[in-house]
Amino acid sequence: MSATRSVARRDLTALFAPRAVAVVGASDDPVKWGNWLGRGALRGERRRAVYLVNRRGGEVLGRPAYRSLGDLPEPADLVVVAVPAQAVEPTVEEAIATGARAIVAITAGESDGDAGGPRDAAIAGRAREAGVALLGPNCLGVFDAGAELELVPNPLPAGRIGLISQSGNLALELGILAEEAGLGFSRFVSLGNQADLEGADFIRELADHDATELIALYTEDFRDGRAFAAAAAAAVSAGKPVVLLTIEHSEAAARAVRSHTGALASEGRAIDAACRAAGIERVRTPYELIHLAQGLLRGPAPRGRRVAVLADGGGHGGIAAALAHDAGLKLPLLSDGLVARLREGLPPTAACANPIDLAGGGEQDIHSFDRSVRLLLGSGEVDAVLMTGYFGGYSEYVETMARGEASVAEALADAVRLNDRPLFVQTMYPHARAADLLRRRGVPVYRSIERAVTVLGRLARATERRPGDVAALPPPAEPVRGADYPEARRLLAAGGVRFVPAHTVGSTAEAAKAAAEIGYPVVLKALGLVHKSDAGGVVLGLRDEAALTRALEELRARLRPPAFSVEGMAAVGEGVELLVGARWDRRFGPIVLVGLGGLYTEILRDVAVSLAPVERPEAERMLLSLQAAPLLRGARGRPPVDRAAAAEAVVHVSRVAAAHPEITELEVNPLLVTADGALALDAHVVPAVGESG
Amino acid sequence: MSATRSVARRDLTALFAPRAVAVVGASDDPVKWGNWLGRGALRGERRRAVYLVNRRGGEVLGRPAYRSLGDLPEPADLVVVAVPAQAVEPTVEEAIATGARAIVAITAGESDGDAGGPRDAAIAGRAREAGVALLGPNCLGVFDAGAELELVPNPLPAGRIGLISQSGNLALELGILAEEAGLGFSRFVSLGNQADLEGADFIRELADHDATELIALYTEDFRDGRAFAAAAAAAVSAGKPVVLLTIEHSEAAARAVRSHTGALASEGRAIDAACRAAGIERVRTPYELIHLAQGLLRGPAPRGRRVAVLADGGGHGGIAAALAHDAGLKLPLLSDGLVARLREGLPPTAACANPIDLAGGGEQDIHSFDRSVRLLLGSGEVDAVLMTGYFGGYSEYVETMARGEASVAEALADAVRLNDRPLFVQTMYPHARAADLLRRRGVPVYRSIERAVTVLGRLARATERRPGDVAALPPPAEPVRGADYPEARRLLAAGGVRFVPAHTVGSTAEAAKAAAEIGYPVVLKALGLVHKSDAGGVVLGLRDEAALTRALEELRARLRPPAFSVEGMAAVGEGVELLVGARWDRRFGPIVLVGLGGLYTEILRDVAVSLAPVERPEAERMLLSLQAAPLLRGARGRPPVDRAAAAEAVVHVSRVAAAHPEITELEVNPLLVTADGALALDAHVVPAVGESG
Repeated sequence: MSATRSVARRDLTALFAPRAVAVVGASDDPVKWGNWLGRGALRGERRRAVYLVNRRGGEVLGRPAYRSLGDLPEPADLVVVAVPAQAVEPTVEEAIATGARAIVAITAGESDGDAGGPRDAAIAGRAREAGVALLGPNCLGVFDAGAELELVPNPLPAGRIGLISQSGNLALELGILAEEAGLGFSRFVSLGNQADLEGADFIRELADHDATELIALYTEDFRDGRAFAAAAAAAVSAGKPVVLLTIEHSEAAARAVRSHTGALASEGRAIDAACRAAGIERVRTPYELIHLAQGLLRGPAPRGRRVAVLADGGGHGGIAAALAHDAGLKLPLLSDGLVARLREGLPPTAACANPIDLAGGGEQDIHSFDRSVRLLLGSGEVDAVLMTGYFGGYSEYVETMARGEASVAEALADAVRLNDRPLFVQTMYPHARAADLLRRRGVPVYRSIERAVTVLGRLARATERRPGDVAALPPPAEPVRGADYPEARRLLAAGGVRFVPAHTVGSTAEAAKAAAEIGYPVVLKALGLVHKSDAGGVVLGLRDEAALTRALEELRARLRPPAFSVEGMAAVGEGVELLVGARWDRRFGPIVLVGLGGLYTEILRDVAVSLAPVERPEAERMLLSLQAAPLLRGARGRPPVDRAAAAEAVVHVSRVAAAHPEITELEVNPLLVTADGALALDAHVVPAVGESG
Repeated sequence: MSATRSVARRDLTALFAPRAVAVVGASDDPVKWGNWLGRGALRGERRRAVYLVNRRGGEVLGRPAYRSLGDLPEPADLVVVAVPAQAVEPTVEEAIATGARAIVAITAGESDGDAGGPRDAAIAGRAREAGVALLGPNCLGVFDAGAELELVPNPLPAGRIGLISQSGNLALELGILAEEAGLGFSRFVSLGNQADLEGADFIRELADHDATELIALYTEDFRDGRAFAAAAAAAVSAGKPVVLLTIEHSEAAARAVRSHTGALASEGRAIDAACRAAGIERVRTPYELIHLAQGLLRGPAPRGRRVAVLADGGGHGGIAAALAHDAGLKLPLLSDGLVARLREGLPPTAACANPIDLAGGGEQDIHSFDRSVRLLLGSGEVDAVLMTGYFGGYSEYVETMARGEASVAEALADAVRLNDRPLFVQTMYPHARAADLLRRRGVPVYRSIERAVTVLGRLARATERRPGDVAALPPPAEPVRGADYPEARRLLAAGGVRFVPAHTVGSTAEAAKAAAEIGYPVVLKALGLVHKSDAGGVVLGLRDEAALTRALEELRARLRPPAFSVEGMAAVGEGVELLVGARWDRRFGPIVLVGLGGLYTEILRDVAVSLAPVERPEAERMLLSLQAAPLLRGARGRPPVDRAAAAEAVVHVSRVAAAHPEITELEVNPLLVTADGALALDAHVVPAVGESG
């Protein structure tokens, strides 16, 4: 478990709006970072003093070069370090000594390309001691469009996205893609090794930055994942969407897994759980990020899933409709009145149900498009319109139609504003003037229908989500000592989980006494095994003392267990077996999992994961999100089971996990849920090993 | 059931390589089809005579216009009809009368925009009578790059793809996307309403067309789907990949469904089954089609799933690796020897396991790229290399590196050829000269990593597929009369499916006699119900005559069934319940389905579908493709079940279905599969209704 660091806002004034900037290592050589950054710094010269430092002195980029920071005529509050590796530490020292308030360390220390090395720790420690904010090392720089601060190797497009990236090249790619989509950056920070300043610091900073309307991140290293998620949740609550590009690494080798929960609640699922809790939109590629950003930044969000598809020609509309259906959007049949109004002025072959096919009507009268979209958006029958195919191309082929398309584009944008409902456009002609006009008037325009539908579907589903809430961790409870089966039962039962009655016994006599107390039939378990059932260590339905004794002796001979458990026999008949577990994730802390138990757990991998602890509504949502949820509702004539009791068990397990950082994995498997309640039939605890406890 | 039409090859010489072309309706008006097509026809004037026909005579497009086809100096063997709707029929008649061998009907007949109208049938009938090939009506034209035949409204890029499209606008979009990817068309036909010539005719034609290396189709209307699939399978066997862009319509309302099989074996799954059988690659969007075509046309196909990911910078490699893993590709750890050779000349921070991160090595020495790719492709340790990120951009930022990148591109293409293993490239700079060079030298280049990985994953998986085989239908068997439960059992048992013993009875006395013969415990079923079990019409485990009598009287009072079935009680304990069914699809004929039965069938929708009849290997493949396949292999300590017996049952059901076109749906549910064999516990037949039988 990583300790939660202080979440106080850092003062980053000198980083984003310095009075004076010094670039140490500035160079005339066009293949050097010191050249690119020096030129970038000089583009802001009319806003602030820019000093170029090079130990050889002379002139660099047409300016006098200072031999050291000490030679500057005034202190530079922001110092960019673009020197060879061995000179990084002395330069950082000099920057601190000469009054820097922020340092951007482009170069990594010697042999210290990877994050977390001893030299990273050394310079970060010195910066923190001195109260100086340090970005990097091993980063690409910092950019603020409003402040004309361009301490980056390449020009970046200006816009409304605040970008935080751990990878330089990915930031460059995002810049290219943003520009193509007519978007750009309000600020950009390259995180590098995050020796001092980290992702969460910048999420907090951008949440308060007026020119930033959307926060985009690429990171693989979340540091304190809870703090990260909490910072993102605060930004989302403040109305700024957070889009996270991240991946999980294949982890088979990375983590020893000793329970089903451990195997199923993967690191990827932990990231998903954190994103869900915080309201973060997670994406997996740069294109996905920019496509989603376009949908979030342009036009109002859809208020529901109902969409009308509009095309001029059958193929495009049909493809869009099928994809929309797969993306969870709904294409309602339109009312007779609306269909009649749509039909006016369209060719007789036009299809006006949904999808709507103008059937050449656009070619005959280009205003068929805006007339139809206005009717649809104003009807109240759909939450969004998806226009797909040829629009933008009429003027490509017939020049006289260019003015027509432009005026349609204006009318479409007006219809969106008037009705406060979004229009998504996919066009074969993304470079057409009409497409550009639409983008500039705030209508999202996509080159491919799959991208348009994916984003629209995602925004529509987001309307059904609860607001983000990253649960705080309770104070740690008294750590558990052992981790054997009786202790696991005791711990969970104390937390509120209902168990079948059980007694731990060592001999046949003790077993008989226990069984008499519980009442036959009973179950006998051999203790001390990780997966009792798979190892043949569980005998069900023992009807009398003779059967119990025989079973105990057989188990003793075969498995030599340290002890046995005699337990009540639950009526599994009409119930559903669930798996409820929790795992302590190294970045995001405790996560809780629920899934179909028994035979199907690992085969179908049908589970829901959430940050622990959870409350009842989230536990209910988890249960209902399972593919197997119909079983809980009572599929095929079976009675519905007590879902509330199942949800309570999830809540209890999540709370126990959250209070016990010394436990790595914890599970109830199965939890038998019937019409009458939920009963734990077995449990399992894996304590942390070595230093991680 | 649609009748299988003759699959004789049509003579399409006059369509693709006419001696003389006439465009009827040629026009000077730049917004008319007659203008676009006339201009297109004239672009081939140096190859053949082109006659423009306009009933007003005079001059059109700078050529004399003929008033009618009868006025031409020679017969036109190809006539393009671009006249107003009411003139289509007379023009077709005139074309036939004046010796046309092929007709392209651009315009649809009056009020006949949709396919299959009476006027379509009339002109198609006339054309067939006269032995003339008719394309359309309601189509966009025809194009042959080699013959300089451009009877289309827009110029199209020339290349190696034969495109058959039911939608004009989609064909235009595919043209734009192909051109962007450096690809183009050998031939293009716009199918229109397919009144005469249909998709399968052109698949057969293109399979024999040397300049066509890949056949791409967009269609929603398959006509005789078996013939379509068989034509595609023949093309694939002849070495020409077939890529099909199609969608299925939401069909809840379209088809009454009376069995689980009917609900699960949807029209979309029928298309998938046909594609699998024929070896067709199915896609859902124009972009997917072009991206896949690029992968199929450029570079050798991968021979397996092992891939090395190569990037210059951590983020790109990590994202590509995660996506590759999700796409079913494998990133093997590379051998120590290979890693050591990769390391030579790279920065010490370079990561050389897999993914490989040059860590700035490309910037230091651009030939790090080709050196690494050569080592990887030549190692035998991977089947393909996926290069991602910045390559192409070095020369964007530093002009002196342009020559370096170009020579790397050449070297990369050479490495591919030398090792006969593919390199897939994703670059942030798809317009860079190096990217263009790669494409021209046969290396697929993608703008987005998700597209590159999707295609590579798809090609790698395709290596594991059996060759395509579209099963022929057996001659129809004697149609079944009734469709009640005893008849369903009889039919399937005669087909080889093993059932539990059963007797149909009407009275308690008959029931007792039957039970005595079968042996207690028995099962009692009330007949005449669609879903006996869901309706509470099945009583299990009747241990003696008294219990049987009580159960029968209870069922009689509650359900008033016409009869009962007394059956043997199977030992469900350690077995797996499967659903095996078949459905007669309106386009593709009989399809067979297998899935997890019992409670989970409809909840999990874990099924496999294939064209019926199937043989044992395909039935085995279907079973193993289920998500629940581990249950058959014996999950969590349970014994493996008799998979061969289950596969045999699938074969038997598929054969019965294929021999009975009068049956719409047919199913065994459940089929109990244990270690000792497979036993049908219930069955159900839905006869065709009305004319569809």
